[in-house]
Amino acid sequence: MSQTSKNIAIVGSGLVGSLLAIYLRKAGHRIDIYDRRPDIRNVEFSGRSINLAMSVRGWQALEAVGIADTIREIAIPMHKRAIHLKDKPMYFQPYGKENQAIYSISRGVLNRKMVDLAEAEGANFIFNAKVWDVDLPNATLSIGEEDEKTWEHKKYDMVFGADGAFSRIRHRMQRRSRFDYSQQFLQSGYKELTILPDANGKHKLDKNSLHIWPRGKFMFIALPNLDGSFTCTLFMPFEGETSFESLRSVDEVRRFFKETFPSVEKEIDDLTHDFFKNPTSALVTIQCYPWTYWDKVALIGDAAHAIVPFYGQGMNAGFEDISVLNSLMTIHGDDWETIFDQYQKRRKPNADAIAELSLNNFMEMSAKTADPKFLLRKKIEARFAEMYPDKWEPLYTRVTFSQRPYAEALAYGKKQAKIMDAIIQLPNIENIWDSEEVEQEILSRL
Amino acid sequence: MSQTSKNIAIVGSGLVGSLLAIYLRKAGHRIDIYDRRPDIRNVEFSGRSINLAMSVRGWQALEAVGIADTIREIAIPMHKRAIHLKDKPMYFQPYGKENQAIYSISRGVLNRKMVDLAEAEGANFIFNAKVWDVDLPNATLSIGEEDEKTWEHKKYDMVFGADGAFSRIRHRMQRRSRFDYSQQFLQSGYKELTILPDANGKHKLDKNSLHIWPRGKFMFIALPNLDGSFTCTLFMPFEGETSFESLRSVDEVRRFFKETFPSVEKEIDDLTHDFFKNPTSALVTIQCYPWTYWDKVALIGDAAHAIVPFYGQGMNAGFEDISVLNSLMTIHGDDWETIFDQYQKRRKPNADAIAELSLNNFMEMSAKTADPKFLLRKKIEARFAEMYPDKWEPLYTRVTFSQRPYAEALAYGKKQAKIMDAIIQLPNIENIWDSEEVEQEILSRL
Repeated sequence: MSQTSKNIAIVGSGLVGSLLAIYLRKAGHRIDIYDRRPDIRNVEFSGRSINLAMSVRGWQALEAVGIADTIREIAIPMHKRAIHLKDKPMYFQPYGKENQAIYSISRGVLNRKMVDLAEAEGANFIFNAKVWDVDLPNATLSIGEEDEKTWEHKKYDMVFGADGAFSRIRHRMQRRSRFDYSQQFLQSGYKELTILPDANGKHKLDKNSLHIWPRGKFMFIALPNLDGSFTCTLFMPFEGETSFESLRSVDEVRRFFKETFPSVEKEIDDLTHDFFKNPTSALVTIQCYPWTYWDKVALIGDAAHAIVPFYGQGMNAGFEDISVLNSLMTIHGDDWETIFDQYQKRRKPNADAIAELSLNNFMEMSAKTADPKFLLRKKIEARFAEMYPDKWEPLYTRVTFSQRPYAEALAYGKKQAKIMDAIIQLPNIENIWDSEEVEQEILSRL
Repeated sequence: MSQTSKNIAIVGSGLVGSLLAIYLRKAGHRIDIYDRRPDIRNVEFSGRSINLAMSVRGWQALEAVGIADTIREIAIPMHKRAIHLKDKPMYFQPYGKENQAIYSISRGVLNRKMVDLAEAEGANFIFNAKVWDVDLPNATLSIGEEDEKTWEHKKYDMVFGADGAFSRIRHRMQRRSRFDYSQQFLQSGYKELTILPDANGKHKLDKNSLHIWPRGKFMFIALPNLDGSFTCTLFMPFEGETSFESLRSVDEVRRFFKETFPSVEKEIDDLTHDFFKNPTSALVTIQCYPWTYWDKVALIGDAAHAIVPFYGQGMNAGFEDISVLNSLMTIHGDDWETIFDQYQKRRKPNADAIAELSLNNFMEMSAKTADPKFLLRKKIEARFAEMYPDKWEPLYTRVTFSQRPYAEALAYGKKQAKIMDAIIQLPNIENIWDSEEVEQEILSRL
């Protein structure tokens, strides 16, 4: 069903805001995108981002508007985890089957490209424009400097809040009665660091892997960039024995890297430099409801559901919001009240599910990937999934390489975990893991 | 340990703010209390409050500053629930042992009295003063009209946010990184209604009971006032088949009261009048952390932990905050950083526990009090508790008639519930409930 052209404001020119602009332009709407920051194409990156891992949900949303190939040019496939244990050789854990990969993309590089593409599609970007407030029933933005006297009021048919975890648009909705809201911070924060290319401009580590140094309460990861560098992230508690607070001097940081991550020993000078240059950022899960106000205002992406980065699904979930919204636009045409209502009802349980899965995955990445029992579980699961692909899909595969709802994946994963908890308790499991007995035991529990 | 006199602001002149002022005055501090509303002693009540049920924690906090007797004069003891089922005679459920009662007090009447008492103690009340913001590290309030130009800035040694569920002080803390916060609304709301005294100024229902008309998804309660009236509350879903939304006309409301609450049939005209006069209010649980900022700012009462009213513990929990704060002041003297830190660490798990207990109790009051199985459970528990008072204390008793931590009560109650879940499944339990067999079964599971 086609739609009557509307005058629409999008607040936030990040990844979700830009992609949404492309979709809405293709549906025939007039689009203004506001951002409080300057044009990302003209500024240095912040030094506080984690490389993105684009997977099926993200690609599908790009594909549907014909820009997946363009984005693929700035993406590097990662087929596996490369696990760096302390006194053992590095080894690989494939993410899925041979042709399956997640794609490393620099957030900044991708954002610049998305703004270009949205602009080419006819979206009108207004940078350095601070949106302070929104009049919900009138879809009217208040824009200007913090001092209320100079605010300009711009009325639209509709406003989308794509303004991230600390959304101003949500902030207004939050002050209404019966708006459920929660923000929960992890005790751990993160810091962006870089491993530079070698003298020939090549990657110093295998470039088709997501590298992990799991150390229990903290971990270090590295994702490849096109220029031969890796964007790395150190996740670590803010306070406590080994923490951002406890590492104060250059010597302490050098010693920490040397003892904890011996495989990056040659990079220690650079990493230490970055450690003091880049900020330490917090990790937050934000959940809220409702996401929409009549047919006037809707939240999308992190503004509606910010999650921790450990499943690599933040951007993918935001892009999937757009896919769902678009499918509802096709069905319901100009009935935006129904579109918004269905949109929030369909997405909310899935946003909650990926939030939970992402929190759980911190433990998996930082501790379990170093645990032999966990590796044995993965082997048993992989073998069984290979033999009975219609009876067992690994949870990671379902989340990352399918478009089945996150909520379904979460429920399915819980059922699988219960079965594997029992299997791993079987006597002598280390030796019989690939036996018919184990296979029958799993079948009987399904 | 005595304290150096400080210049302290309390934001909010409600029950907790006023009692806190009395404690801090007795410790020798200079106190300004701000409230955005006019002096409650000069205005009509809002028509949106639920009568309070003062229990041991509340009384203890009043007792310690010598004002319990004064407050007892405006309180009516309720020894029991009076349960009004649809087609059965009313019956009683005692709250505890013979001498145990919770006390019905009108929120407005109590608040007026508390302001009087705090004023007599030397606290300085500033009404109609809107606090919009607080500079946390400088304990400086911004006061005035909404327009920022006219704000007055008042610096203190310390600021307490006792400004309720929608606290402005917390609002400022909330915008800092790593501040955990959640607000969760129930699908049900409430409306205050009144049963007037009879022609002789007497109570029309038993005055020493908390009356409940449990109807599953909704319920009606009535708490006695000194003047012979009852303050009643109708709890009901906002939307759906039987809901505030579905009752639109006078006729619909009259029919609803008549069919649903036959025992108040004679009051229907008054109740219907109130129904349209009084607002429908929402029920929210608010949780956050941290509660303090250095030794400068602390949240207390609903500002730190707003809960739903179904355990009658909201004010009691707020008063207990003050008892704990005061005991820490006695131990740590002028070390306010330690006082604030210990205060939040001790109170937070207990605030979370009473939040959970209060949510659970909605089901108990509205549905289970009408369920024969539930009544049998209560009978078995009561009998066992009587025989083995050192082995079994009913959860309600522990929450209401003891000062043991709420968190301990919650854990203890979960353990009891698990045991009773098993006991109630025993074959023929209806007939053997008072047998030695059941007694032994409980003992074996403890």
